[in-house]
Amino acid sequence: MFSTSRMREAFGDRARVQGMLDMEAALARAEARIGLIPASAATTIAVHCRAEHYDFAALGSAAAFAGNVAIPLVTALTEAVAREHPDAARHVHWGATSQDIIDTGLMLQLRAALDLVEADLARLAHAVGTLATTHARTPIAGRTLLQQALPTTFGLKLAGWLSALTRDRVRLRELRPRVLALQFGGAAGTLAALGDQGLEVAAALAADLELALPDIPWHSQRDRVAEIATTLGLLSGTLGKIARDITLLMQTEIGEVLEPASPGRGGSSTLPHKRNPVGTTAAAAASLRVPGLVATMLAAMVQEHERAAGGWHAEWETLPDIFLLVDGALANLTQVVQGLEVDTVRMRDNLDATKGLLLAEAVTTELAPHLGRMAAHRVVERACQRAIAGHRHLRDVLAEQDETRTWLTDVVLARLFDPRQYLGLAELLVARAIATAEHLGDRKPNAHHHAEPAPGADAP
Amino acid sequence: MFSTSRMREAFGDRARVQGMLDMEAALARAEARIGLIPASAATTIAVHCRAEHYDFAALGSAAAFAGNVAIPLVTALTEAVAREHPDAARHVHWGATSQDIIDTGLMLQLRAALDLVEADLARLAHAVGTLATTHARTPIAGRTLLQQALPTTFGLKLAGWLSALTRDRVRLRELRPRVLALQFGGAAGTLAALGDQGLEVAAALAADLELALPDIPWHSQRDRVAEIATTLGLLSGTLGKIARDITLLMQTEIGEVLEPASPGRGGSSTLPHKRNPVGTTAAAAASLRVPGLVATMLAAMVQEHERAAGGWHAEWETLPDIFLLVDGALANLTQVVQGLEVDTVRMRDNLDATKGLLLAEAVTTELAPHLGRMAAHRVVERACQRAIAGHRHLRDVLAEQDETRTWLTDVVLARLFDPRQYLGLAELLVARAIATAEHLGDRKPNAHHHAEPAPGADAP
Amino acid sequence: MFSTSRMREAFGDRARVQGMLDMEAALARAEARIGLIPASAATTIAVHCRAEHYDFAALGSAAAFAGNVAIPLVTALTEAVAREHPDAARHVHWGATSQDIIDTGLMLQLRAALDLVEADLARLAHAVGTLATTHARTPIAGRTLLQQALPTTFGLKLAGWLSALTRDRVRLRELRPRVLALQFGGAAGTLAALGDQGLEVAAALAADLELALPDIPWHSQRDRVAEIATTLGLLSGTLGKIARDITLLMQTEIGEVLEPASPGRGGSSTLPHKRNPVGTTAAAAASLRVPGLVATMLAAMVQEHERAAGGWHAEWETLPDIFLLVDGALANLTQVVQGLEVDTVRMRDNLDATKGLLLAEAVTTELAPHLGRMAAHRVVERACQRAIAGHRHLRDVLAEQDETRTWLTDVVLARLFDPRQYLGLAELLVARAIATAEHLGDRKPNAHHHAEPAPGADAP
Amino acid sequence: MFSTSRMREAFGDRARVQGMLDMEAALARAEARIGLIPASAATTIAVHCRAEHYDFAALGSAAAFAGNVAIPLVTALTEAVAREHPDAARHVHWGATSQDIIDTGLMLQLRAALDLVEADLARLAHAVGTLATTHARTPIAGRTLLQQALPTTFGLKLAGWLSALTRDRVRLRELRPRVLALQFGGAAGTLAALGDQGLEVAAALAADLELALPDIPWHSQRDRVAEIATTLGLLSGTLGKIARDITLLMQTEIGEVLEPASPGRGGSSTLPHKRNPVGTTAAAAASLRVPGLVATMLAAMVQEHERAAGGWHAEWETLPDIFLLVDGALANLTQVVQGLEVDTVRMRDNLDATKGLLLAEAVTTELAPHLGRMAAHRVVERACQRAIAGHRHLRDVLAEQDETRTWLTDVVLARLFDPRQYLGLAELLVARAIATAEHLGDRKPNAHHHAEPAPGADAP
Repeated sequence: MFSTSRMREAFGDRARVQGMLDMEAALARAEARIGLIPASAATTIAVHCRAEHYDFAALGSAAAFAGNVAIPLVTALTEAVAREHPDAARHVHWGATSQDIIDTGLMLQLRAALDLVEADLARLAHAVGTLATTHARTPIAGRTLLQQALPTTFGLKLAGWLSALTRDRVRLRELRPRVLALQFGGAAGTLAALGDQGLEVAAALAADLELALPDIPWHSQRDRVAEIATTLGLLSGTLGKIARDITLLMQTEIGEVLEPASPGRGGSSTLPHKRNPVGTTAAAAASLRVPGLVATMLAAMVQEHERAAGGWHAEWETLPDIFLLVDGALANLTQVVQGLEVDTVRMRDNLDATKGLLLAEAVTTELAPHLGRMAAHRVVERACQRAIAGHRHLRDVLAEQDETRTWLTDVVLARLFDPRQYLGLAELLVARAIATAEHLGDRKPNAHHHAEPAPGADAP
Repeated sequence: MFSTSRMREAFGDRARVQGMLDMEAALARAEARIGLIPASAATTIAVHCRAEHYDFAALGSAAAFAGNVAIPLVTALTEAVAREHPDAARHVHWGATSQDIIDTGLMLQLRAALDLVEADLARLAHAVGTLATTHARTPIAGRTLLQQALPTTFGLKLAGWLSALTRDRVRLRELRPRVLALQFGGAAGTLAALGDQGLEVAAALAADLELALPDIPWHSQRDRVAEIATTLGLLSGTLGKIARDITLLMQTEIGEVLEPASPGRGGSSTLPHKRNPVGTTAAAAASLRVPGLVATMLAAMVQEHERAAGGWHAEWETLPDIFLLVDGALANLTQVVQGLEVDTVRMRDNLDATKGLLLAEAVTTELAPHLGRMAAHRVVERACQRAIAGHRHLRDVLAEQDETRTWLTDVVLARLFDPRQYLGLAELLVARAIATAEHLGDRKPNAHHHAEPAPGADAP
Repeated sequence: MFSTSRMREAFGDRARVQGMLDMEAALARAEARIGLIPASAATTIAVHCRAEHYDFAALGSAAAFAGNVAIPLVTALTEAVAREHPDAARHVHWGATSQDIIDTGLMLQLRAALDLVEADLARLAHAVGTLATTHARTPIAGRTLLQQALPTTFGLKLAGWLSALTRDRVRLRELRPRVLALQFGGAAGTLAALGDQGLEVAAALAADLELALPDIPWHSQRDRVAEIATTLGLLSGTLGKIARDITLLMQTEIGEVLEPASPGRGGSSTLPHKRNPVGTTAAAAASLRVPGLVATMLAAMVQEHERAAGGWHAEWETLPDIFLLVDGALANLTQVVQGLEVDTVRMRDNLDATKGLLLAEAVTTELAPHLGRMAAHRVVERACQRAIAGHRHLRDVLAEQDETRTWLTDVVLARLFDPRQYLGLAELLVARAIATAEHLGDRKPNAHHHAEPAPGADAP
Repeated sequence: MFSTSRMREAFGDRARVQGMLDMEAALARAEARIGLIPASAATTIAVHCRAEHYDFAALGSAAAFAGNVAIPLVTALTEAVAREHPDAARHVHWGATSQDIIDTGLMLQLRAALDLVEADLARLAHAVGTLATTHARTPIAGRTLLQQALPTTFGLKLAGWLSALTRDRVRLRELRPRVLALQFGGAAGTLAALGDQGLEVAAALAADLELALPDIPWHSQRDRVAEIATTLGLLSGTLGKIARDITLLMQTEIGEVLEPASPGRGGSSTLPHKRNPVGTTAAAAASLRVPGLVATMLAAMVQEHERAAGGWHAEWETLPDIFLLVDGALANLTQVVQGLEVDTVRMRDNLDATKGLLLAEAVTTELAPHLGRMAAHRVVERACQRAIAGHRHLRDVLAEQDETRTWLTDVVLARLFDPRQYLGLAELLVARAIATAEHLGDRKPNAHHHAEPAPGADAP
């Protein structure tokens, strides 16, 4: 429901059928080039390899009956070719098996889908990076186990997101040369129907479709498609973390950020005042759903012999669902982050919520050189307990305690309880995360492709 | 139950505690080098950073009570140091937070565990590769949807396994520089307790422990540990596929391979004649269990703010379980493959099981240039039906059919129905898979490390 | 892809919108009955509560924007009512919240979907039971760890499936009164907008819609919907087991059953002779996918406070997907089992495949009273090894062995090696499974709840 | 790590071995009673069926080698018996197969483990119910999508938890007679080794062990064990929801509840003031892990023929892990709820956080009879926007607005903005949930099966 229309198209009937037809056309071209079939046959076949000529609903029904969609599509294509050029029809699908067509067609869809994901991810990373730079020094409560722990900066929180998104981008880039590979082996993976020329056809096909030529066919070795799923699964986890953080920061009692306002969005059917997380909720839901789908892809890898009875079929809707969920989450979060309303006043107010307890570590750190770490810890712990019990500010308790008075003068206390004075390296760390992200952007994806040959991607 | 003792040790109490203590000792050394603490303190601390000095059972109970194991360990370490050198005790754990210790300690364990997995994986890949070479030309029925489809070779089946194992090896190598990273950020990830010198300490720590220095602390960004899980998940899927194939080939009615004989192994408590798959069963069970555990690791990535209330804790036993299962599967399959009994006679007998139907495609391919692919398909389909109905050999049916007699002479038929004549490029494809695998072996893992900087792994 | 059209309809846009509108109409009726709103308003509202009046695509887009589908639907309904009767419009959705409408609408869909599943399941159980009766005494090899172990009967194998299907039917019946419950609580679950009359409205609503009235609203307590998922998950596991068994029995080398023949079904695009498992493959694929989806439903139960930000939304497509997969598997398997071709000759032939080893236990059992169980086991084990080594029939080895000759006369050996003589209680056990299944069928579902002992829990 | 010692024992080596030995002893007794073996043999066998006589470590190693633990245990038992009474040794394990021993032994462990879970669950339900009664009228902000929505009561929130826990208790009771069943079928499930007396032995065994006698053996029909997993999975989801709510309520900025104070618990190694959620974190972690494990149990149901090669083995550690996690979560949450510190002052303070926005629905409800629901909604929405923009209290904005002034007098406004006046039926609903829970407690579990209406299904 929260998916993007472009990703729905990328895995829609049309794209699926076109992917398979692109493979059939390229196969005919490759075989014609090598002289296995007449050039005229390849030309005629290519003419009919356009998805709009086919009835997707009819293909769908026939596929459920026949067991896979290639069977009725090849029949329909052959009939179409035969009507125009009976002689060409005998060359359709030459030497290929259903799975060659379906898997290679899928690869073409996956490439397009990965393009969308990478573009959307770059956009989100950019939005997060921009916000991180803006708020590199904006103090906010650091929260561990959902309890205020120490001050940090909103920018550093964002830099944490950015750093993970950058690694996700690297993973997606590294993935492509390994996974986007031609599938072409014939019924048992031996290319037997093509005599000695199987590998030549395969190489021409891979070049034509701009897919990697694998060392051998991989009909029942599904690590390539599964790795796409796991890589998106990692990204989904990162997006879920971002969504969780935003929904927590949007809580009424915290109110440090708000999703961008938009008439009719985030309202409730009965509560006029609400500003519900909508985009983040969609992303949170997606991140709840993806792990189970990734598990399915991994479980489906256990495929029998040269073609599975079930494992392969279990991938067909699962992998597209993962793309739909991840891209929907990306789109929603990008819209949220780009328009995020940041309330730095609430951030500062919340830093005062513990009456100084939040800066207890600063005090411990100050006292430790004098008392030792453990003793300092105990002294401050006692002061905290006193402050809590008496509903007092920790600063005031410390100021009157014998065991601390010596080292904690008024000037020292004023500094210790200013959160801006205890942000450590936050700003520097933000800069590091930004630099890594930008470093990635500079590298040209294409350059990367060529520099790193995938194993088994060499031509013979 | 089927795990290896060395992996149980790698994730045992001792290794866990030692990992954390290694971090504490290195932290003290780093801080001494930079002048934050006295060198003598670092020396004393290091002396007490030996796991055998601690009571693991007591630490375990205390950890369940306190919420994590670093809390009681730091207390115990500090007390031990204090007994010897009270002044040094104040410098223990300086500037670190529990999660710094636990995560970095885990990284040291993971590095050792990955060493074990990579070594075991190399061993299995070698055994599979050796067998693939031996049987590169051994005919066996190719089976799709568990039905005999076409002849292939046993070597090509093995090469399919090998090819996936090689990609798994590449993944594990690529993974290391990205995931094996220092965790060091202090309570909120700002390194505030160390003033300006936090990054200097971090760099020294990373160098000392030979871990990557991340661009920023990653307490609640769990893609690193999750990526180890997904990568092992992919390997587990490959192992499950191998196990499935072996159990299927071992079926009484197929009998093409047997697990190595061993007195008392694979027997049944009541059936004296059985030769049960034991190692493959263990691997199959592991591959059933890993996907759910990987899903847990992905689901656990959704961690709140600067430290999670649950997500982090959900990793603690899940990731070790994945290692135990995958390494147990590797060890079991290696033992199976190294001693696999291959019955090439049964393979040949089984190729005759369909009375020639298995070579129907060879006939179709032979006829297609004459009749067109679709017509040839129909003609052969009819002949197959006649052969099935009459319980006759397809060759005999074809020999007497008008529509085929012209092209299918006795000599042609003899050739067409010899499975060795229809193995396509099997041998060549095996050689390609072996070459890719060996290419990997040649590359030195260490060289690889240095040539490919991980994002965010640069020193400041 | 392998789902049934009736289940797709049950979870289609139309059914979803109609479910919500049924809730709105019933709400208005209930409030009119109690006097909270005018009867004429309820009448007008009901007139507009017909799904065909609404634009599903527009609602879908608006839902993705607003966060849930109830928001735009209530707006559209109110506008429609207002156009006819402005005064009635103010009474639309009175006292309800979005989730009341969505959840209760879902319950109406689930009831219809459960009807479909139960009917399909009864049909499959009937087909399995019929076949079990027919083959109660048909000998087949019992196979453990995919190795022939002992003879059993095909009927007993089927009775095992039936017994599990019967328990699945019981679970589905027990489930309904607990899970098919009204959702009605208003925005925070207190029914505050209805003053003192909330419970009265709720009771009238529940009666009108024939749903259980829960003790309290359950907006963020999702065990009801999750239990539907887990119960279908158990059924899916049973169906997966059946599918696995059938694909294994259909293997070329075993050939004991075949899916029903049907032109164009089960063929291959290149292999004319194949008889692929199609329906069982679909069911196998479904059973691979359902566990991950059930895990999602369980993970999604962790919902925040009075309404979740993500968990609830994660259910919306997951639960329908489970129904589609399970019902598709049921339909496919029913078609397969109803038309299953059973080859009892192959079953008998396969029983001879081990040259008598399969009946080793019968020999052990015969010898045990004379030699003791362990000694008998060892003696027979040795004989088996001799038989295997010499490629001889176990009977012949036993006949000439000193240690066994005394007790194993020719007459005894003839009996011992006739599989029909070693079927134990197979026929009786089949009858027991049939009786339990029929016992269930006799009972009226409504009566069921009060009197039904669990199947399989009866003493003989 | 957060498991209970009693559950670790219930699934420890000792309990596992004892479970299997209890089966062996009962088997011998049953066979002696029927006259299949001598009474003296049964007596001798029983003497050796005590776990403390066996070396668990040795059994474990042998099990990994042999494929299952029954094989070495039966050998060890037979040897022990033989040393005392050679003649009795031949009667050990008579007619049983490994899986009979392992599964039935497991059932005995599961019964004990379910006792623990039910007792712990009753304890938690009681603690929650007690707190719900105490706080039935304590106002707290109702929060939807983590935003304050409307007032509710803390008791009603607790009643929501209680209601789900009650249904979990009902599920566990209903489960027992269906799942706690004897496994006894011999190697292929036909009981062939016992001639005509197999069922008689089975009935005696079931009676002796107080397990249900299933209609037929269920070696590869795993719905019974899987249903235990799914039922605990539902419970785990409920516990996860409770844990999530508590961690959210414990947030520094909300502070409405705190885990019970305990020296050294919930502290941080560096932050002296923190009061971390420890027990709830453990429960949250458990609820993250259980869904993946349940998925494994469902995936493992796809078991081949009469005994699986992997599926069965995948259950062995997975089901115990589920029990350990769920019982650990129960114990932790019980400790938390029993000692929960409830801060009703913070609850009231937080109700004022929105400056009256929280009661916007009360105003809408008040105005709706005058203006119509939609118009009232719009009017109040506008007032809310004005209040937010001007940082003013909604009450003050409404008091000066022309369109509302007429109906909202000072008296009306005072009432409308008192949260105690807008709690709807909270108190009554709490009473209903308590009544359902107590109704369950009153009933004797044994009587239960025949008479129990589903909780929450009663009309008022």
